[in-house]
Amino acid sequence: MTSSLERGRELARKLNPDLEPVLSGRYDDLVPEFAESLIEWAYGRHYARPGLDLKTRQLCTIAALTALGAQTGPQLKINIAHTLAAGASRTEIVEAIWQMSVYGGLPAAINGLNAAMEVFEAQE
Amino acid sequence: MTSSLERGRELARKLNPDLEPVLSGRYDDLVPEFAESLIEWAYGRHYARPGLDLKTRQLCTIAALTALGAQTGPQLKINIAHTLAAGASRTEIVEAIWQMSVYGGLPAAINGLNAAMEVFEAQE
Amino acid sequence: MTSSLERGRELARKLNPDLEPVLSGRYDDLVPEFAESLIEWAYGRHYARPGLDLKTRQLCTIAALTALGAQTGPQLKINIAHTLAAGASRTEIVEAIWQMSVYGGLPAAINGLNAAMEVFEAQE
Amino acid sequence: MTSSLERGRELARKLNPDLEPVLSGRYDDLVPEFAESLIEWAYGRHYARPGLDLKTRQLCTIAALTALGAQTGPQLKINIAHTLAAGASRTEIVEAIWQMSVYGGLPAAINGLNAAMEVFEAQE
Amino acid sequence: MTSSLERGRELARKLNPDLEPVLSGRYDDLVPEFAESLIEWAYGRHYARPGLDLKTRQLCTIAALTALGAQTGPQLKINIAHTLAAGASRTEIVEAIWQMSVYGGLPAAINGLNAAMEVFEAQE
Amino acid sequence: MTSSLERGRELARKLNPDLEPVLSGRYDDLVPEFAESLIEWAYGRHYARPGLDLKTRQLCTIAALTALGAQTGPQLKINIAHTLAAGASRTEIVEAIWQMSVYGGLPAAINGLNAAMEVFEAQE
Repeated sequence: MTSSLERGRELARKLNPDLEPVLSGRYDDLVPEFAESLIEWAYGRHYARPGLDLKTRQLCTIAALTALGAQTGPQLKINIAHTLAAGASRTEIVEAIWQMSVYGGLPAAINGLNAAMEVFEAQE
Repeated sequence: MTSSLERGRELARKLNPDLEPVLSGRYDDLVPEFAESLIEWAYGRHYARPGLDLKTRQLCTIAALTALGAQTGPQLKINIAHTLAAGASRTEIVEAIWQMSVYGGLPAAINGLNAAMEVFEAQE
Repeated sequence: MTSSLERGRELARKLNPDLEPVLSGRYDDLVPEFAESLIEWAYGRHYARPGLDLKTRQLCTIAALTALGAQTGPQLKINIAHTLAAGASRTEIVEAIWQMSVYGGLPAAINGLNAAMEVFEAQE
Repeated sequence: MTSSLERGRELARKLNPDLEPVLSGRYDDLVPEFAESLIEWAYGRHYARPGLDLKTRQLCTIAALTALGAQTGPQLKINIAHTLAAGASRTEIVEAIWQMSVYGGLPAAINGLNAAMEVFEAQE
Repeated sequence: MTSSLERGRELARKLNPDLEPVLSGRYDDLVPEFAESLIEWAYGRHYARPGLDLKTRQLCTIAALTALGAQTGPQLKINIAHTLAAGASRTEIVEAIWQMSVYGGLPAAINGLNAAMEVFEAQE
Repeated sequence: MTSSLERGRELARKLNPDLEPVLSGRYDDLVPEFAESLIEWAYGRHYARPGLDLKTRQLCTIAALTALGAQTGPQLKINIAHTLAAGASRTEIVEAIWQMSVYGGLPAAINGLNAAMEVFEAQE
């Protein structure tokens, strides 16, 4: 049976092969075992779980980061890229963000739309 | 062409026929036009939009309300019921909530699980 | 020239003569000087300032506590009572709360309306 | 009887004639009907309501955006400009912001003051 | 070398021997592997780390849960009990909570003091 | 007996001799008595209290600012500098920040680590 760390690594490599090496290079000196802790928890203990498909999981993440406010801006942008990699369309992503104006307020939703526009423009 | 209020009413009636009359009875004396404002905005201007299916919209709502914290407890419970009505399974709902421990922290996710348990128990 | 503590005490007595003795009786054993710290800061250093009338200050407080979510429920209720004491009508209070659905989302606004209804009913 | 969208448009044009065309030009391709949804909800369903004067509504908005934190920075600056347009003085705006240190904490209030300083300087 | 799950279990048992069995009994049917995920992440990947003593870690947790607001009430109470178990005095706990009025606002700090009073009274 | 303002000034001068003059120069024209209000409340009424040592108070502040999100970025950086001045090591600061991923979510903790890296680099 695979460990939560192994399951997380397998999934993270599919979504974004650079994720663990980039996190490790940036943070592991400051916080020993940072990258493997994050991969084990977020990908091994959550995204790799059965019961909800990966694309919907990613759309839920985008909705929540939008509602929590632009403090999560950089992570919102990374997750928009991961959500495209999980098979969602741009329209689905934009709709999940805009709906958050009902729950997190208009300013949070507008900040989320701005983040999506930046990711889409950078990919063109 | 239908107005945003008409579109909202049509969809809200499908998810929860009591929603508008209950909101109207409880709040319209205090806030004139409360119920129709809410139905027009949340259902007419968001849930009724094309581009993202209703079930995924509802799962995104549950994720966001969980991440925002239990202050949204009553609304989280109503939306868990609406999400079941939109065709999601209990497992999908629980997984969307638990994943929020990565973004809103463990306490918010645990409060969300408690809300789901209350809704499921009340339906049995 | 009066100190910030003296100015705070004078204003707090006008809005709610029980405020400092109730706070002192409940918290000063646990947190020495709790009540006088709070009165000095909130009333002496803020509500007693010139430049914005007391009624508008209180309406701003209600708006902010609503937008911050129901975690501030007990304090929201006390401030609704203080806002009535500062000369605002029930309608003005309710409108300040409901407008927060644009900025803090619908669930926060609905929780705020529920708090106002409880205060109004308790006063009848 | 005018619709909520018509009432919203009438008021938004008074506060800021560029608001709807700017929002529409920036967001309507990404989110169809974005600008009219926002105008209908925020201005037609809230700012245009009777029961609380526009200047106080705007000061309540500034207080709430400050307390919610600087994630709402761009929207806070737009609303500071709208609040001046609704007849508030700079002092009233600054006092509404600084009072939020009691409810949202010192960092949120200081970020709000920084936003006000930027708006005032840009207008000179 | 021990795994993060083993390190977490060893520490959680010291702070609160009932923690994992209680969490497992309440949540593992709903969310398979809930308890071991939480123990691995919170205790194995955080509280068991070197570099900051356990008592200070617990005081930091209490400060953060207070500042985040009473939505975290039940988790705040459990962590107050764990902080006493880690060797902190009641006074240290109360001071960490009250200081949060500077950062999370007065309402959040007062809700935190109320939680501490409930825990202290229940232990007498 | 010294006043809360005098106690605050004495402590603030030890942590950061420039703090009051910088705050006064930047904000006192806009908000009369801004700097002395802040020093009286934050330093006189909180950091100068007995019952919890200054270093632990500062670590609690860093934890809370991290959990509240990057909206408090500038204040987080100032407090990281004050925490070093109060005798904490870089490792203790980093550990207090990273632990917040359990309570405020991964994005908030990562933003906190980025702030710490900027402060440490600026000091080298």
